[in-house]
Amino acid sequence: MADLVDLRSDTVTRPTAGMREAMATAEVGDDVYGEDPTVAALEAEVAALFGHEAALFAPTGSMANQIALQLVVPPGDELLCDADAHVVTYEIGAAAAYGGISSRTWPAVGAEIDPDLVAGMIRPDGYFAVPTRAIAVEQTHNRGGGGVIPLASLRELRRVADDNGLALHCDGARIWHAHVADGVPLAEYGALFDTISVCLSKGLGAPVGSLVVGSAEKIARARFVRKRMGGGMRQVGILAAAGRYALAHHVDRLADDHAKAARLAEAIAPFGVLAAPVRTNIVPLDLTKHPLDAKTLAAAARAEGVLISVLGPRTARLVTHMDVDDAAIDRAATALTHLLRA
Amino acid sequence: MADLVDLRSDTVTRPTAGMREAMATAEVGDDVYGEDPTVAALEAEVAALFGHEAALFAPTGSMANQIALQLVVPPGDELLCDADAHVVTYEIGAAAAYGGISSRTWPAVGAEIDPDLVAGMIRPDGYFAVPTRAIAVEQTHNRGGGGVIPLASLRELRRVADDNGLALHCDGARIWHAHVADGVPLAEYGALFDTISVCLSKGLGAPVGSLVVGSAEKIARARFVRKRMGGGMRQVGILAAAGRYALAHHVDRLADDHAKAARLAEAIAPFGVLAAPVRTNIVPLDLTKHPLDAKTLAAAARAEGVLISVLGPRTARLVTHMDVDDAAIDRAATALTHLLRA
Amino acid sequence: MADLVDLRSDTVTRPTAGMREAMATAEVGDDVYGEDPTVAALEAEVAALFGHEAALFAPTGSMANQIALQLVVPPGDELLCDADAHVVTYEIGAAAAYGGISSRTWPAVGAEIDPDLVAGMIRPDGYFAVPTRAIAVEQTHNRGGGGVIPLASLRELRRVADDNGLALHCDGARIWHAHVADGVPLAEYGALFDTISVCLSKGLGAPVGSLVVGSAEKIARARFVRKRMGGGMRQVGILAAAGRYALAHHVDRLADDHAKAARLAEAIAPFGVLAAPVRTNIVPLDLTKHPLDAKTLAAAARAEGVLISVLGPRTARLVTHMDVDDAAIDRAATALTHLLRA
Amino acid sequence: MADLVDLRSDTVTRPTAGMREAMATAEVGDDVYGEDPTVAALEAEVAALFGHEAALFAPTGSMANQIALQLVVPPGDELLCDADAHVVTYEIGAAAAYGGISSRTWPAVGAEIDPDLVAGMIRPDGYFAVPTRAIAVEQTHNRGGGGVIPLASLRELRRVADDNGLALHCDGARIWHAHVADGVPLAEYGALFDTISVCLSKGLGAPVGSLVVGSAEKIARARFVRKRMGGGMRQVGILAAAGRYALAHHVDRLADDHAKAARLAEAIAPFGVLAAPVRTNIVPLDLTKHPLDAKTLAAAARAEGVLISVLGPRTARLVTHMDVDDAAIDRAATALTHLLRA
Repeated sequence: MADLVDLRSDTVTRPTAGMREAMATAEVGDDVYGEDPTVAALEAEVAALFGHEAALFAPTGSMANQIALQLVVPPGDELLCDADAHVVTYEIGAAAAYGGISSRTWPAVGAEIDPDLVAGMIRPDGYFAVPTRAIAVEQTHNRGGGGVIPLASLRELRRVADDNGLALHCDGARIWHAHVADGVPLAEYGALFDTISVCLSKGLGAPVGSLVVGSAEKIARARFVRKRMGGGMRQVGILAAAGRYALAHHVDRLADDHAKAARLAEAIAPFGVLAAPVRTNIVPLDLTKHPLDAKTLAAAARAEGVLISVLGPRTARLVTHMDVDDAAIDRAATALTHLLRA
Repeated sequence: MADLVDLRSDTVTRPTAGMREAMATAEVGDDVYGEDPTVAALEAEVAALFGHEAALFAPTGSMANQIALQLVVPPGDELLCDADAHVVTYEIGAAAAYGGISSRTWPAVGAEIDPDLVAGMIRPDGYFAVPTRAIAVEQTHNRGGGGVIPLASLRELRRVADDNGLALHCDGARIWHAHVADGVPLAEYGALFDTISVCLSKGLGAPVGSLVVGSAEKIARARFVRKRMGGGMRQVGILAAAGRYALAHHVDRLADDHAKAARLAEAIAPFGVLAAPVRTNIVPLDLTKHPLDAKTLAAAARAEGVLISVLGPRTARLVTHMDVDDAAIDRAATALTHLLRA
Repeated sequence: MADLVDLRSDTVTRPTAGMREAMATAEVGDDVYGEDPTVAALEAEVAALFGHEAALFAPTGSMANQIALQLVVPPGDELLCDADAHVVTYEIGAAAAYGGISSRTWPAVGAEIDPDLVAGMIRPDGYFAVPTRAIAVEQTHNRGGGGVIPLASLRELRRVADDNGLALHCDGARIWHAHVADGVPLAEYGALFDTISVCLSKGLGAPVGSLVVGSAEKIARARFVRKRMGGGMRQVGILAAAGRYALAHHVDRLADDHAKAARLAEAIAPFGVLAAPVRTNIVPLDLTKHPLDAKTLAAAARAEGVLISVLGPRTARLVTHMDVDDAAIDRAATALTHLLRA
Repeated sequence: MADLVDLRSDTVTRPTAGMREAMATAEVGDDVYGEDPTVAALEAEVAALFGHEAALFAPTGSMANQIALQLVVPPGDELLCDADAHVVTYEIGAAAAYGGISSRTWPAVGAEIDPDLVAGMIRPDGYFAVPTRAIAVEQTHNRGGGGVIPLASLRELRRVADDNGLALHCDGARIWHAHVADGVPLAEYGALFDTISVCLSKGLGAPVGSLVVGSAEKIARARFVRKRMGGGMRQVGILAAAGRYALAHHVDRLADDHAKAARLAEAIAPFGVLAAPVRTNIVPLDLTKHPLDAKTLAAAARAEGVLISVLGPRTARLVTHMDVDDAAIDRAATALTHLLRA
């Protein structure tokens, strides 16, 4: 699909030449035995970035999240999150199916969080009701249009968690984007959460890989859970090398992706289909008041060489990333403008 | 606790003399072998009341609900319900822990339901997201203050379920109260739901027992699931006899319990603590604006010989039932009026 | 089925007049609130019999076993038992389905246990293999023909469990029979196990009910697990009264059932179909070398008014109990002798 | 550990220069979208090798096995396998914890299988007992000393499965070794099983990766289950390229590993510690009658620069692979001979 402008997701990026070189020359060992030096280095780097004791490599962001949730919520106990959260939407029910985790959700409104609303949902530990054990948030928020949860809200939520003895997990697949957009240091985020998952294969451009970040004790248990989930790989330094390269070269450049998304948003805004202000690399479309529905728009865009994601009958998404350059953004903006005007 | 007015729940009722006589003389057999004539008669009666093909006895309302949910949602797939529903609150996470059922919830606002809001939460069957399989409602709604979901909302919700190929389950532990309060025939409710659980040991006054109602095919599977859940009892006709007696003698009299609740509500209303209009046998208290919090009020009431339930820091509940007569209601009203005024 | 001699199971017994009287006059309360005096008395009695701190009523033996297993084996960890054990045969996979409990089994050879064989199966707690957490035995052994595990074997097994930090659970649905057959005090059994389940509705003749026995700490957790399993019933003193009556009147008389089984075995022995020596109230048949298979024999026996259980193509079972008197045993012996000779 | 002779497992191999080159130049795409050409090619190749319709890449052999088991055994139903099988030993209880799969096991005796014994363990589909749904075997058998299950036994087991409507799964992590040792065509194995897992990162020397093989319908569902398990990776062609290289270059050479194992076995045999005849690349040690226990021997060997695996107090394992050459084997044989003689 070389000629297509692929705005479906930032997961579609292909490794760069530098990243391939890093993989080709990576020193490796058997990571199930804890002997892969490259993955160990990556884990140490990521833990340090967030000011946590330890981190663990996982094959996907879904597994990283699910490992973390299994660490903080015993089977049968409860997780609170928003109704559009990746952990209860795109992970195919794994929290309940595999972790036995019961969940209740608050309504998703972009990336906004009302800590009082969340506090009101907590069930106390006791005999009559399911005990709430953890709260999960998503930074940036995928279905929330790449929105960034304000730091003040997160601090307030941390207080709620502390007051109730709950763990706070961050699905930080795109926390890099929040860091770049708002300038909040990663360690400042790190201080707020018991566990964080981060992803190397979305905005950062690595082919495969995520990590769970937490205390040394939690990550030791995470290693066991990862094996049970079938995520204990062997010479995984090949992939970790790509991740280390991505961390070294592809974090700051996310600002470019944000700028590209802003340009797309600007082109589209006049048609009244922007679902929310664009903060990072996602442009969310709300077609409720537009003649075209999401599938029709996506099909028409594909015919023009532009791929977009359909999220619902009247919602769609454009995502910018390393593999779409300015010229591609121009092509996409022109095509979409043309279609939306018609 | 003979001298206490027990308004904690309608589960506290003791069997009447007539009900004890029915139990003492019940014909029984081994129900695991399908040979208990009294339970078979009860199951047939309850199925007929709701116009369904079959019903199955279960030791508790929680098990009846969980059996039904396991019938309509495969492990890993999704259930939608409100955030205060009994099935995700008071059943201790069983849907996730034992059924592997993923859940997302809409905000609970009394017994109100917004079918469009629910429709907007449904995830289509596909590869990327957890597929929604069922919607559950609760009639009357326990934490919703005994409110009755309007028939029109339920019909609209049935349409939403049909449009999306979803099952609709009713936690009907107190559906008898809705039937008596609104005059909606049980069979009319029956026609709206794929599965219904009903309870004999709450308002109806039997010591133990609930039933799941559904199609013959579903109830055949329910029998298997009940055994796996550890609910396959033997000479259960003893309990079924109490249930048959309750159905024959204790449904219409629920109107008395509703009247008693209305009298309590009238006494309390001037203090601004009524959380919602009283529709059935539950009087919900909202103490947010009152000097007393829920624990303090409950302790003070207990000192006056009145037991009430604490649901949250500022929420409490009074429930009327067969074992509180008019004099007891007067005592409770006097005591609570006294405490709330102070 | 008044005219039939029902030897399918000792679960088919109907409550006696005295037991019905005890139920009809039982003092009751809401056991979910811990306020049923009769069930409390029963729980205290049973705990005391086994020299344990506490006990908990459950609706079935299956639930009592599953609650106990969930107490001693965390999800994903391992239980060892024999391949014919009730907990992995007749409880419909509940240990895995609901408890997430992994199981490996040793070959069942009647009620015999080889503690060294069991010891050799234990996986150490570690990173690479599933950690073994508990061993379960069944006393008497149902599919093992009502055989009694020798006390010496159990003591040796206790030592194996201690050496490896494992819990030892006893499915004691028919431990009363072992107690009566071998004269081993119940408290002596109690001292060997971390958790024991006992059943009131099999040989003891109560209509419904089992208990889990263990430490106060375990039983407190068991109460929570029971609620999650849907086993938290309300005025359950009705059933507990039957259980108390059964304990008072129906334990010693099990010797009669053993004698009846011995008489049946004696009649059948000449035909070479006795699978094992009869120790308690079960007569196991092995038809491997007989012209009749199990289904054919059962159908022919039914035509003669005798009901027996088919366990496999060539295995069947006769069980004696309170509701078959000497005359009935004679009828059964005559009918079976006739059929086996033909 | 460049100077060590690492005989702990064949998982420790590092990618060769050719394999690294294949990874560095692999064409990739987003495999969650089904757009990675290299992984698609690998899946097609492996499916074809076994004569099946389809195959699916998975990050580990454990996940490949668990996906397959979830396809053929519904939650709560039963799997039969031997008590030393990888699926119930080294996958940390995942079948029960995540799949809800109940298991019973037959005694492991090397790689031998007694189809009649297995047939006798099957529980029929019905109301009273957990229904058996699948049988799993392991070829070659890891804890069975790398033994090869005879083709005749597998054919007989296939007949048992067919007679009882069961699925037959093969944990074929080292099925390549069986193919090379016995000359049985992979397609002949393929014809015997409903699902097969194969591993690229053990004997074949790829850094990461396994596949599940089965019908097109099963593999479509497997793709969904893999996502739920957290195994849906993105530009996985990097790893698939290593796998394709391994299939092209590293299958036939397994004969060398077998020869090296045979040489080790020959050196050790005089000390009476060989647990079983060596058939493939595993040399199983039984130290029951030797003065050294397994930990002591392993520590002493490590001091001599030779790493071996401890499997139990008196059992250990040597595994040959691509990264131990003839000189290394000589060093290991000398060291072990020295230690065992002492």
